[in-house]
Amino acid sequence: MVNFAERMDNVKASEIRELLALTARPEVISFAGGLPAPELFPVDKMLAATEAVLKENGPQALQYGPTDGYTPLRQHIVNRMKARNKIETDVSHILMTAGSQQGLDYVARLLCDPGDVVIMESPSYLGAINAFNLSQPKYVEIPTDENGMIMEELEKVLATTDRVKFIYVIPDFQNPSGRTWPLERRKKFMEIVNKYEIPVVEDNPYGELRFAGEFLPSLKSMDPKELVIYLGTFSKILAPGYRLGWICASHEFIEKFNLIAQAAVLQTATPSMMIISKFLDMFDLDEHVATLLPVYKHRCDLMMDCIKEYFPAEVKYTIPDGGLFTWAELPDYIDTKIMASQALAQNVAYVPGAGFFPNGGNHHCMRLNYSCSTDDRIVEGIKRLADVIKANLK
Amino acid sequence: MVNFAERMDNVKASEIRELLALTARPEVISFAGGLPAPELFPVDKMLAATEAVLKENGPQALQYGPTDGYTPLRQHIVNRMKARNKIETDVSHILMTAGSQQGLDYVARLLCDPGDVVIMESPSYLGAINAFNLSQPKYVEIPTDENGMIMEELEKVLATTDRVKFIYVIPDFQNPSGRTWPLERRKKFMEIVNKYEIPVVEDNPYGELRFAGEFLPSLKSMDPKELVIYLGTFSKILAPGYRLGWICASHEFIEKFNLIAQAAVLQTATPSMMIISKFLDMFDLDEHVATLLPVYKHRCDLMMDCIKEYFPAEVKYTIPDGGLFTWAELPDYIDTKIMASQALAQNVAYVPGAGFFPNGGNHHCMRLNYSCSTDDRIVEGIKRLADVIKANLK
Repeated sequence: MVNFAERMDNVKASEIRELLALTARPEVISFAGGLPAPELFPVDKMLAATEAVLKENGPQALQYGPTDGYTPLRQHIVNRMKARNKIETDVSHILMTAGSQQGLDYVARLLCDPGDVVIMESPSYLGAINAFNLSQPKYVEIPTDENGMIMEELEKVLATTDRVKFIYVIPDFQNPSGRTWPLERRKKFMEIVNKYEIPVVEDNPYGELRFAGEFLPSLKSMDPKELVIYLGTFSKILAPGYRLGWICASHEFIEKFNLIAQAAVLQTATPSMMIISKFLDMFDLDEHVATLLPVYKHRCDLMMDCIKEYFPAEVKYTIPDGGLFTWAELPDYIDTKIMASQALAQNVAYVPGAGFFPNGGNHHCMRLNYSCSTDDRIVEGIKRLADVIKANLK
Repeated sequence: MVNFAERMDNVKASEIRELLALTARPEVISFAGGLPAPELFPVDKMLAATEAVLKENGPQALQYGPTDGYTPLRQHIVNRMKARNKIETDVSHILMTAGSQQGLDYVARLLCDPGDVVIMESPSYLGAINAFNLSQPKYVEIPTDENGMIMEELEKVLATTDRVKFIYVIPDFQNPSGRTWPLERRKKFMEIVNKYEIPVVEDNPYGELRFAGEFLPSLKSMDPKELVIYLGTFSKILAPGYRLGWICASHEFIEKFNLIAQAAVLQTATPSMMIISKFLDMFDLDEHVATLLPVYKHRCDLMMDCIKEYFPAEVKYTIPDGGLFTWAELPDYIDTKIMASQALAQNVAYVPGAGFFPNGGNHHCMRLNYSCSTDDRIVEGIKRLADVIKANLK
């Protein structure tokens, strides 16, 4: 009988990953994953970049490197963050991570003792909740509306809650809700945060996947007190397999993150970093992203049309301007976890919503992904799902 | 003023990494790193494997994959562990990690609450101490002799110590001491461990780098109660840049490690796993390892000859049968941390020994790496270091 650490009481299998295992059968139409469309990966260009790296710098690419990461790649990231996100920074503020998931783990390890408080949108990203759970925090959820976190509610919580260590937010095309915060709300948020001087984790994996509406500035671009820890990633704009993300934060934070990274993994993989850096030397990533947007827009529009046509009127859902997900709220007497088995029996899958609420409840919601399905599967899958929902209506 | 988590009090910069930064100047002869020789990396074969993967399975290679890792690679590992280490296992016992460093972090996270006890050899791997520190354990060091951990001392400690969560050992060509446990000691260790039923972490990055003496079975190969958590890595036999290691452990452990990995990073990089798997399909890794051994043996022998010739007789040192390191003990009035600056002034570097003792002390030791230096630099470096040591003798 092994006596595990207390943190293991908080750690359970991700419902998404367990569900994905069940949905691997090809006959299942899965809206459950958060996968980018693999047919859009720039495989040939990645091969050209890889060949260049191994031919020009093979031994360096296969060797250990510094913990903070490959500097030319960090410089590319700095340039991109300026061009795309209006964030002014330099390489000394960038630490490479294994996807932004590792950044989430590092943030909680840096800031949270057991029982410390993390504030998040309600709902919020299930994978972030899983990562934070390893550091045993408590959660306060802030209610949201169609424009994201409700700032009056946030202010009430900050005024009355001790031990708040950070606020975790996804202002652009949130996972799972697909919602985006308008400019006014971003400004109000930064005003509140500056007043209370609470660190913020801005997770922005989807910001560049905007296919409708206007660009909105990141929180990090309006952060004079350097409270924002910004998490970026190549997973959704290039390819997730390489597991390459980054943290951009103040020197005070980034030095501590470096120490954690050094202890936890030594460094991010050298060939991955050098290959993506070379890709950015050789090719135009903006051009590649531009090829994704019409496809994701088309799939999103099609799913919206199908939901409108086939789902019963009782279902409310988000119409996203970008990203990978929509979020549906069913009548509150329907438990989408129970319904998921019925849907799987009809060979269609989604993620039940309850996992996105760290304090539980909200069994009547579901997350639907549109980025990774062909047209005919979107139409057929939504039809099947509509039938399953209708069978559950009172 | 940010209030960091308590674990951050335990986390400080690795002396090796800080020293490596100082030793990057080309005129410095550095015996400080633990780097494999980059000129021996099979760059062309790796390129061929990469081209094959991206041409045959590009979209899969760039996509997300399962947390436990790419199954064909895990099968290769199972086959290799059987052939090379006499370990009988199957893929369900293997989890891929970002080098064995990540395995070290996961072990402490799985087992240690603050104040729990980790037992290790004295000295032991500095990077393991850093990784474990994030989980805030206490350490009990077991004295060692030229044959590794002294079993009578281990048994005394186990009989009298509460909250022991695991024993961390490197029985083959230990980092930093270069020492190897003989068979009798391995048997005695497993006897004691089976009696107390304490989990063991067997870290074996160097086992295949034996260039003298006879093969010795791993602890994991004599583990009927499945107490041993075995950490393997491709870093020293193939290339460290990919950050590919693995944990082999009982189902009880491996299921928990999977949950930690899922929360902390989702998965290990897909292209790295598929490329190394393809390398193992296409080429003979044993043949590649066989090309490393004469080079490492030659460099080790040369360093031993130079130490014998130039170091003062007061210095004791290990003569390794494999691996990357030798360990030198100077007269105990010499502080090798202070002396390191004097050595750097003479453009020669080593790692001061104190960092390898989790409870401090032992300022008179040093670790020397021979795998990554050319002949003339080994000769010149040891001469310079001998002069620095002589200047410190009373």
